[in-house]
Amino acid sequence: MQMSLPCVKQPDVITCKAAVAWGAGKPLVIEEVNVNPPQAMEIRIKVVCTSLCRSDITAWESQAIFPRIFGHEATGIVESVGQGVTEFTEGDHVLTVFIGECGKCRQCTSGKSNICEVLGLERRGVMHCDQRTRFSINGKPIYHYCAVSSFSEYTVVHSGCAVKISSVVPLEKVCLLSCGVAAGLGAAWNVADISNGSSVVIFGLGTVGLSVAQGAKLRGASQIIGVDTNPEKGENAKAFGITAFINPHDSKDPIQQVIKNLTGGGADYSFECIGDTGMVTTALQACCDGWGLTVTLGVPKVKPEVTAHYGIFLTGRTLKGSLFGGWKPKSDLPSLVDMYTKKEIQVDEYITHNLPFEDVNKAFNLMREGKCLRCVIHMAK
Amino acid sequence: MQMSLPCVKQPDVITCKAAVAWGAGKPLVIEEVNVNPPQAMEIRIKVVCTSLCRSDITAWESQAIFPRIFGHEATGIVESVGQGVTEFTEGDHVLTVFIGECGKCRQCTSGKSNICEVLGLERRGVMHCDQRTRFSINGKPIYHYCAVSSFSEYTVVHSGCAVKISSVVPLEKVCLLSCGVAAGLGAAWNVADISNGSSVVIFGLGTVGLSVAQGAKLRGASQIIGVDTNPEKGENAKAFGITAFINPHDSKDPIQQVIKNLTGGGADYSFECIGDTGMVTTALQACCDGWGLTVTLGVPKVKPEVTAHYGIFLTGRTLKGSLFGGWKPKSDLPSLVDMYTKKEIQVDEYITHNLPFEDVNKAFNLMREGKCLRCVIHMAK
Repeated sequence: MQMSLPCVKQPDVITCKAAVAWGAGKPLVIEEVNVNPPQAMEIRIKVVCTSLCRSDITAWESQAIFPRIFGHEATGIVESVGQGVTEFTEGDHVLTVFIGECGKCRQCTSGKSNICEVLGLERRGVMHCDQRTRFSINGKPIYHYCAVSSFSEYTVVHSGCAVKISSVVPLEKVCLLSCGVAAGLGAAWNVADISNGSSVVIFGLGTVGLSVAQGAKLRGASQIIGVDTNPEKGENAKAFGITAFINPHDSKDPIQQVIKNLTGGGADYSFECIGDTGMVTTALQACCDGWGLTVTLGVPKVKPEVTAHYGIFLTGRTLKGSLFGGWKPKSDLPSLVDMYTKKEIQVDEYITHNLPFEDVNKAFNLMREGKCLRCVIHMAK
Repeated sequence: MQMSLPCVKQPDVITCKAAVAWGAGKPLVIEEVNVNPPQAMEIRIKVVCTSLCRSDITAWESQAIFPRIFGHEATGIVESVGQGVTEFTEGDHVLTVFIGECGKCRQCTSGKSNICEVLGLERRGVMHCDQRTRFSINGKPIYHYCAVSSFSEYTVVHSGCAVKISSVVPLEKVCLLSCGVAAGLGAAWNVADISNGSSVVIFGLGTVGLSVAQGAKLRGASQIIGVDTNPEKGENAKAFGITAFINPHDSKDPIQQVIKNLTGGGADYSFECIGDTGMVTTALQACCDGWGLTVTLGVPKVKPEVTAHYGIFLTGRTLKGSLFGGWKPKSDLPSLVDMYTKKEIQVDEYITHNLPFEDVNKAFNLMREGKCLRCVIHMAK
């Protein structure tokens, strides 16, 4: 007797537009790419909006894996799901995330960490299950970035790297909760746990730094000092909670001394949001004895080693890292989206530019020139 | 009309024996020294016992201020008090402490720190109130060390650098709570806050490291790995809670890899108790992703900079310093002495040698050769 198999519609290969990076620092080229169907536990997403994050640029400038499709801060709509996926169905609205949550590993089940052992930082540009890419041009593989690759009309991600959100939430706004704004708020709340009335200093006033500022403000910090060498960054910083702006170029004294003077001996908390390990040392020095906490969020472009005198630690300082603000994406992001819906957190205010997908290189230029906070790239409908 | 002043007995200069270090690394010489009366808010103490701590040796080998009287881990009896001292009276039994507690500064009143701003780490070898020494030989000043200088039959300390203890507590034992044992227990309890069932790795199994082990054991840590290049250190370590001993010389793999294998991915807590900043890096690498906490206690003899790859922090590790285990001496040490009295903590077990004062150089040799944990030096009665 012959078994009658249920008829399941198999997703096809999709051909669509994607912005391909062919080499380090070379302008992206909009190409026709093939996007393979999602494999087991994967989903294919029609990207709606993707905002440009500084780490896309850092990786594009320095990393070795090419050709590649960058982009990781995005929203989209599920187009199809792979075998075994029960959490998502076609038409679901999702946030993508660059670190996933498998929900089962030692880290995910610890209640103390978001560094998923299975779907943590993905650096090799391939999918988890088969170490292959889902993108290709004429059979030539195009690599993924940060498990997302949202500079493409369609992308495939592991189902652990997407978070379902309500269909009434504006996708062109909440894409910022996919990385930058969430990373900053989480660093302030989850990692540093900023207390009411405290003093905070933030090095680097991009979206992440200004989201730390917002987080500090919402926690009732009384002094929120922003440091940036770009004088334009000081102008809008107050809207996010910055109470004082310092441009190190304007000061004769070392910046850590300026901060010590302003805070009566050093800040309670300092945050490095630039990606400069030398600035991590400065951030430690800008903290107070006894309980000063420095949180490092940045991904350095040059020297990867953090260096600091042992006495910095012996006199009571702590250095801690923050990856995606300590948020477990699936467990925590829905409540952050809720806070946005209830207007408890600012998100829209970080969007300084909106561009159509074909202008993706303009977004790169704007950020490299320090002229934008977040530039949202809108895919064609 | 002439005012009649109350008759107050003024303490005299005392001439007594002290072990004077005349230069870096030169054997101490027992000399007759003059010990001036205590000034305002100071007390003069008849030292009863003083145990040798590794930092006495580190300072003796490397520091620039000589001639000097080392020793900071001590017990004694108050001989006289300076103007304004109401907390102590002649005959009180005391523990000396190398960081004091003024009780009034931002740090002391914070409830978060023991890094007193007034009586914190004293490095210049002079008394707080007048920046002068109380010791001299033929008018030539002999400098203090760590605000204590207990290698002398009598010493003068700020009243904030002594803790009154019950007269029934054995002074020849509890001197270890003046620094080493308290520093280790506090690092485990106050700074790391070790949780039940956790894994701990300790680099350096001197008294401080083995006191961290005791602290971890009392907190219910399930794995307490001790690392030391001295094979003899492994023998007695189990008595203090060490569950596995590793000598890096016995292993082909890097020690952090050995520890990762033993702990299933890295320890929950690591402690650097050697004073080697390179080992701080190793301790960070030996910790697990997500919540690994490294506590640095040691005072390095050579390279003062701690260096670590930023990724160590970004993947969830924290580096924290511990000075005197976070204990506020006056507020906290009496309860630690109580715990000793109630046999809730081990102290006697760290005393491997007892020597008369005239053999102080033998104590130095024993410690430099790694042959002792604590050597208690008994002053003549």
